[in-house]
Amino acid sequence: MKRQHFKLYLFSVVPFLALILVLLTLGKTLQPSAYVAEIRNAHAGGGSIAESFKHPLTILLMQMLVVLGTAKLIGYLFTRMGQQSVMGEIVAGIVLGPSLFGWLMPEGFLFLFPTDSLPNLHLLSQIGLVLFMFIIGMELDTGILKTRATEALIVSHVSIVFPYFLGVTLAYFLYAEFAPANIPFIAYALFMGIAMSITAFPVLARILKERKMTKTPVGSMAIICAAIGDATGWCILAVVIAIAKAGDASGAVFTLILTVAYVLFMFSVVRPLLKRGSEKYFAHGKIQSTYIAIVFLTLLLSSFLAETIGIHALFGAFIAGAVMPANVSLRNLFAERMEDVSVMLLLPLFFAFTGLKTQIGLLNTPWLWSVCGLIILLAIVGKFVGSALSAKLVGQSWKDSLSIGALMNTRGLMELIILNIGYDLGILKPEIFTMMVFMALATTFMTSPALNLIEWYYAKKK
Amino acid sequence: MKRQHFKLYLFSVVPFLALILVLLTLGKTLQPSAYVAEIRNAHAGGGSIAESFKHPLTILLMQMLVVLGTAKLIGYLFTRMGQQSVMGEIVAGIVLGPSLFGWLMPEGFLFLFPTDSLPNLHLLSQIGLVLFMFIIGMELDTGILKTRATEALIVSHVSIVFPYFLGVTLAYFLYAEFAPANIPFIAYALFMGIAMSITAFPVLARILKERKMTKTPVGSMAIICAAIGDATGWCILAVVIAIAKAGDASGAVFTLILTVAYVLFMFSVVRPLLKRGSEKYFAHGKIQSTYIAIVFLTLLLSSFLAETIGIHALFGAFIAGAVMPANVSLRNLFAERMEDVSVMLLLPLFFAFTGLKTQIGLLNTPWLWSVCGLIILLAIVGKFVGSALSAKLVGQSWKDSLSIGALMNTRGLMELIILNIGYDLGILKPEIFTMMVFMALATTFMTSPALNLIEWYYAKKK
Repeated sequence: MKRQHFKLYLFSVVPFLALILVLLTLGKTLQPSAYVAEIRNAHAGGGSIAESFKHPLTILLMQMLVVLGTAKLIGYLFTRMGQQSVMGEIVAGIVLGPSLFGWLMPEGFLFLFPTDSLPNLHLLSQIGLVLFMFIIGMELDTGILKTRATEALIVSHVSIVFPYFLGVTLAYFLYAEFAPANIPFIAYALFMGIAMSITAFPVLARILKERKMTKTPVGSMAIICAAIGDATGWCILAVVIAIAKAGDASGAVFTLILTVAYVLFMFSVVRPLLKRGSEKYFAHGKIQSTYIAIVFLTLLLSSFLAETIGIHALFGAFIAGAVMPANVSLRNLFAERMEDVSVMLLLPLFFAFTGLKTQIGLLNTPWLWSVCGLIILLAIVGKFVGSALSAKLVGQSWKDSLSIGALMNTRGLMELIILNIGYDLGILKPEIFTMMVFMALATTFMTSPALNLIEWYYAKKK
Repeated sequence: MKRQHFKLYLFSVVPFLALILVLLTLGKTLQPSAYVAEIRNAHAGGGSIAESFKHPLTILLMQMLVVLGTAKLIGYLFTRMGQQSVMGEIVAGIVLGPSLFGWLMPEGFLFLFPTDSLPNLHLLSQIGLVLFMFIIGMELDTGILKTRATEALIVSHVSIVFPYFLGVTLAYFLYAEFAPANIPFIAYALFMGIAMSITAFPVLARILKERKMTKTPVGSMAIICAAIGDATGWCILAVVIAIAKAGDASGAVFTLILTVAYVLFMFSVVRPLLKRGSEKYFAHGKIQSTYIAIVFLTLLLSSFLAETIGIHALFGAFIAGAVMPANVSLRNLFAERMEDVSVMLLLPLFFAFTGLKTQIGLLNTPWLWSVCGLIILLAIVGKFVGSALSAKLVGQSWKDSLSIGALMNTRGLMELIILNIGYDLGILKPEIFTMMVFMALATTFMTSPALNLIEWYYAKKK
């Protein structure tokens, strides 16, 4: 420091510091008026470290830290085992729930997940899912659906309708013992059908990418089937929610009319507007912030409308993604700018929340475990065998048909989203919820080994 | 569709549809066991549209929709007036609060912001702020601080210490009438000092960018001063929070020791680790997802530690941003991938929440309005005049000095963040909070016109 500068600093800063000190000393004798402060929030007063653990923000940060840390750690271990890291993240949720952490350390569990913190965690994970479903909707490239349409349509519809049939059959036998009292059979059966026939579009896409199969005939066939399957599945879900919520047929019909009107509005009014907006605000790989705001408003509006109509906000988010302009680079840019916060930061909270509802301890008799086994078996038969056979029917080779079957059998986190909706609607009791989570894990887990096995077998045969 | 395909579809899909229908009909007579379903959450049952407005998610989506829509609309109007759009977004928050919307339409206000929805809104806006402060911390390029260090140090410290002195003076006169009963003078005075001396680093950066002044000597001087000022301000705030929470000096000293240990840990342990990680996981403009997870974990850990120690989670988020590797392209990439969700989607919620606390109706006497005017006057004298004079002292021209003064006077949303912390700590009563919000608005609003005036005056003189 130059000497002159030093002097300057001394004479300009120090006097004020002195004055501040003087005032602080003088002020010690001051008394505020008798007005008793309202303490507006838990922040004020107290101040010990133990105290700070009662603040919602502290608890939420702690939960996010533990959940994210565990998810990434187990996710990493799973990738070393040749599995998708998302599988590990789902398992992390169960590990942190009452099935393991809560069973081993009940006190630590209650400290980490106190009951009154759960609504916050739930809401934040829902916001994460809204963003995530929007991204999924954008990945559902409607252009791809036009290519190879008939073959894919048959395979995908058979691979929905056959497991759907098995799901309804299952519901027929489970209803008396496992259904909640206030849920009509039709809602229960339709829901179990969906739960059996969903495919995890995003997980499938990631597996294909990792195996460099995206551009192969098998890969593109599988992706088209999964896309059609997911879109169909979510539409059926909207019907189920309408029936489950309305309780009677007339209410459901009203909801369905509103749903059709809403979807028409999104595709025939919002979609062209978004397209025109993109022509104005998107050029040379840059999105103007006005357009980002418009897209967010569309997403919020669509989710809000869907939730208000009585179908689920997540359906609205999915539709909002689907009506985005077909421009692939625009869609990718949006996905890229949103997926860190939604997929990385918030999605593990959803897995943790799912894990909190999964109680392995409930499956405490051989009978319950055999029901669980039956569900897993039917799920595999329905989706794996069903898809493989229908692929063979439309003329694929056996190897490709089996590969498609293995891929379509991936339930992944789409299944978990559906299951959570069923749980929140009161359709799934905790026992069945836990069994279905097992089914989702088992079917997703087996995808990579099954694909390896098929390749190994046909390589040997040659 | 080929005829053969049509047949295939018919024979594969239709039979299962028929079977499903049969089962659904059969199942109508089934009864679930007497077990009464626990209805786990507000989703189940009901189903009318009016009912859905009781769900936290529906309310939150509605709030986000209205808040975002209003913010962007008024923000757009403000940009047409030559102001920063962020100013309009802040004003939108006040418009939606009790000052206007709640005053004109109390019923609509309660419908949009029911009391039990506020904690959710608060928490979500806090998560948004955590992400935002992380971005701000990253923008604080520590490399820039090394250039032109002494001049900038003098200007920035004078432009803190002089308004700080005015703030403490103000506190001395306001304390008896306006301070809450349980807040010691020292905490009150130190807090008012910060509230008077903060500069909105991000708003300033945006104004400079818009006026293409970032690379000019005045611009870089202003940005360095604001950066030093903000870092200093947040450190003093940590001290104030420690004192306000602990209530006595010994508690505060303990907190301060922990704070120093925490900051040292972040800079000497976490920073090198993050740097080494970036060398491993960042190349050719691509960040590997492992590193993104590491950064999120660091952010959560730092916020959690800061909140647990007793200083604020936002300070932790700021420090987490500051210890990120100096690599500018890495920092920009992170900022880009996070700012849509945090700045676009969640920050307006914070403005709305600030607006909810701002009650213009409380300023209902000429005396209160004159106090408000005095606060605004002192704020301008402290920051504008203080910065301009010290810039002149270190040898800048009058024109540049005045420009620096005008820029440093921008309080913007950093002020609002500080004010909200003061409110939550119980330091600011609603009247003073409202006055200070006015001060923040007035000083930010005048920046652009003041810069225009200075340019116009010196252009005319030539």
